[in-house]
Parts: sequence; C-alpha cells; structure tokens
Amino acid sequence: MIIIGELINASRKAIGAAIEAQDADAIKKVATDQAEAGANYIDVNAGIFVGKEPEYLKWLTETVQEVTDVPCAIDSPDPRAIEAALEVHKGTPMINSISLEKDRYDNLMPVVAGTDYKVIALCMSDDGMPETVEDRLKIADELVNGLVKNNVKVENIFVDPLVQPMSVNNQFGVEFVNSVEAIMTRFPGIHTACGLSNISYGLPSRKFMNQTFMVMAISKGLDGAIMNPLDKKMIANIIAAEALAGKDNFCMNYLKAFRAGTFEV
Amino acid sequence: MIIIGELINASRKAIGAAIEAQDADAIKKVATDQAEAGANYIDVNAGIFVGKEPEYLKWLTETVQEVTDVPCAIDSPDPRAIEAALEVHKGTPMINSISLEKDRYDNLMPVVAGTDYKVIALCMSDDGMPETVEDRLKIADELVNGLVKNNVKVENIFVDPLVQPMSVNNQFGVEFVNSVEAIMTRFPGIHTACGLSNISYGLPSRKFMNQTFMVMAISKGLDGAIMNPLDKKMIANIIAAEALAGKDNFCMNYLKAFRAGTFEV
Repeated sequence: MIIIGELINASRKAIGAAIEAQDADAIKKVATDQAEAGANYIDVNAGIFVGKEPEYLKWLTETVQEVTDVPCAIDSPDPRAIEAALEVHKGTPMINSISLEKDRYDNLMPVVAGTDYKVIALCMSDDGMPETVEDRLKIADELVNGLVKNNVKVENIFVDPLVQPMSVNNQFGVEFVNSVEAIMTRFPGIHTACGLSNISYGLPSRKFMNQTFMVMAISKGLDGAIMNPLDKKMIANIIAAEALAGKDNFCMNYLKAFRAGTFEV
Repeated sequence: MIIIGELINASRKAIGAAIEAQDADAIKKVATDQAEAGANYIDVNAGIFVGKEPEYLKWLTETVQEVTDVPCAIDSPDPRAIEAALEVHKGTPMINSISLEKDRYDNLMPVVAGTDYKVIALCMSDDGMPETVEDRLKIADELVNGLVKNNVKVENIFVDPLVQPMSVNNQFGVEFVNSVEAIMTRFPGIHTACGLSNISYGLPSRKFMNQTFMVMAISKGLDGAIMNPLDKKMIANIIAAEALAGKDNFCMNYLKAFRAGTFEV
C-alpha cells in the first residue's frame, strides 16, 4: 500500500495556523511523525490561502524536506503553486491532482507531461461526479490516455475513482470498489489511490466503517491511500488485508508490525 | 448473512460436559443466547461421543428446540446420528455436512435426497483438501450436480469452500475468497458458508485477522458463516461489510444495530 500522508493540509485548523505563523517546527513535527509511521508521500496543501498559495506551498515543501527524504504529494489545482513547490522539491514528487475538468486538465497537463512525477488522476469531469463503474471508467480512459500521450508512464499514474457517501445511495460502495477492480484490470501496472472517508458521511461509527471499506477496496486491488498514517487501527486493517490478499510473503510485514506495536486491533 | 451458531459443539469442554451430564439448562442457555444474537441456525454436534452420538444428537436437538424456533444445523458425518436428530426436529433443518469423500457422500446423499433441507456441501474429496480455486470448483461442480440430480434445490445448498491457514501459504486467503466469487457466479441462487478461523492459524491477533478476512469474503459474495454469534466485533464487521456491499437498504440494518448496541467496533 502506497500511503499518502494527508495531515499537512491547510484546511485543518492547526496546520492553517502553523502556515500563517510560518511555524516551521510544527510542520516538521507532522512531517516526521507521518514519515516515521510509514507514509510514502507527504501531502502538502495550502489551498485556503488565496493569492498566497504559491508562496506557502513552496515554504511547506521546503520545510517538510528539511526533515525527511520522503517525497511530497504537491496538492493543488493551481499550476503556479505547483511550479513554485517544484522549484524547491528534491526527489520525485507526486502531483495531486489532475482531473478531466477542462481548466484543471489544461493547466496541469503541461506540468506533468514528459516527467517522472507520480500523478493522481481524479475521476472528475465537468459533467460532475461519477456514480457508476461505467461513469468512472469513461473518465479514467480519457485521463489515462491523455497522460500516456503526454509521456506520463502508466506506472506513475494513480487513478482516484472518487468515493461517494453510502448514505446517499447504498450502491456507492460497490460501484467504487468495482471501479477499482475494473481500472486495475484495464490498465496493467497502474495504481489506484483515494481518500476513503467520504463513504461513511452521515453514518455513525465512521472510523469503523472507513476501516471496513478499506479492507474491501484492498481485496479489489486498491494499492494507494490518501490517509492519516498515524491511525494505527487503519494501518492494522491495511496490513492484515494485504496479507490476506496474498501480498505479504510469509506474513512478514504482518508479524513485524505486530511485534513492533505499530498495530492496533 | 445466514449465521450458523457454532457454540453447541461437544468438542468445546463446557458443552461436552453438559451433554454427558444431560444438563439441559446449560444447553438451552447457549441455544437461547445464540438465537437472541441473531443466529439463523443452531449447530448441534455430539461428535466426540463414539457410540452414543445418535442418542446425544437427538437429545441436543430436542433440548434446543424446547427454547427456540430457530432450526438446527445437524452436524455429523453419521447418517444414523442425523436420522435420530431428524426424528425429533421440527421445521426445516440444515445438514452439516455432505462432502465428496466417498463414504460421506454415499451415506448422506440418501438422507438429503428429495428433501427441503438446507445442506452444507464441503469442498473436500478423498484426494484431500483443495488449495486453488480450480481444485474447489471441480469438487463443487460434482457435489452441486450430485445434489441437484438427487432433487436438492440449488437454493438449499451452502457450499463451504474450506479455508486453509495463510501461515502455510500466503495465497490461501486469495484462493478462498476467489473461490467464493467463482462458486456464487457459477451457480446462481446458491449460497456459500464456512468457518473462517482456520485462516489465522499460527498467526498473532487471530480474532482481528478473522474479522478482516470475513469482510473480504463478504465483498466477494460470501453469504453464510459458521461462527459465534455472540462475537459482537465479528457481527459489527459483518453488518458494516454487508452495508458497504450494497445489501442493506438505506443502511437500516447498520443503523438499527448501532442503536441497539449489538455492535462493537
């Protein structure tokens, strides 16, 4: 599972405040915590700061990279903000995210074209949010083909099929996990990644529901997640599900996590 | 999910002792507890009492049925023991279980032929335990075709694809859940049911691993389980997984279980 640590997001109160105060220590601590917990990418987002986003996103990227070699997932729809962050980023970043919405697509394609960047490709178009497997595959097809034509390798693409709340339609969970399976099958070597927590919107015991949904998505092939890597219960669910899915030789990772206590059941 | 309550099994120390002492109250309590927790069948097993199994299985069946209308899953490979229990059973029982092992097949087919009994069909043959999806489908094909030829309806058959420990081979989890999917697809209207706990044999945090595996199996179509219905965490995982699998309109069952506190997360 490729984990994209989601905690450095300006929409979170403490992070927004730290960015405004240019409190590098606060940001560094959240970066280090996530890296130590096993994050493969550290998401950086300064989206709430209209006008200052490029400056702040660059500062976040620099600050995070002072304490960890884990690359950033540069999280913005604004090519100027992304370019500012790229100026200082060391290593190979992830770009979060391109979509089929015309403005976003046209703005971000030149940024990622011909690079080795990892790219999250969101199954969203100007027609709105997809609901069925078919809707998602149609968008994914266009996005993946567009990226590949622009010399982005399939192996660097992370399709986010977009989770919708089950409280709205009880088929939304099934449609999502079947989309994961369909996308992983249609484009060999591709990845899927997403935030899962929307699934439980409006329901009780949300964390539990999210964990259960993660297990189901992994059983259909999900191999990336935008999540809180400090959530030990979620991590336990991921590690167990990956072992059960046959992705953990001799259950070594499961046993190691159990012994290290990175595991909470 | 069709839940077969597994607790009245003579191999459990307290149950074995209660059977020997003919302590009807102890058996009735375990029967009532399981029925109230939502069991759809109460398994009765007196297998450890060689020579006395027919007498004891009949007594267990009578005793259970004195306190609940939930039918029994009559659990024996011995047709005489099953016939003894059937003499007293009211309603439509489940027979646990026929298999492709020659003796067991030949002994039990006449018991279930032409009846409305539910039948667990274990994917086991004289060639040993199946490991792959292919192995299981081959056995399931012969078993299901044999049962149908003997006028057992497909809707009354519960195929148990047989869980094998993941500590032996890290593909055993995948092979099992893919077998569930393959069997549910090949025989429309059929059920699958099994005990899952073997999956975690030899690993730490077994209960957690079993819960995670249950969620994965449900996402592939599993609709029956031989389990402890008093295990509130397992029940929570089943209810959440079924909701996420689109089998719970408006999440009514999930919400009801949450409010009733039958739920432990």
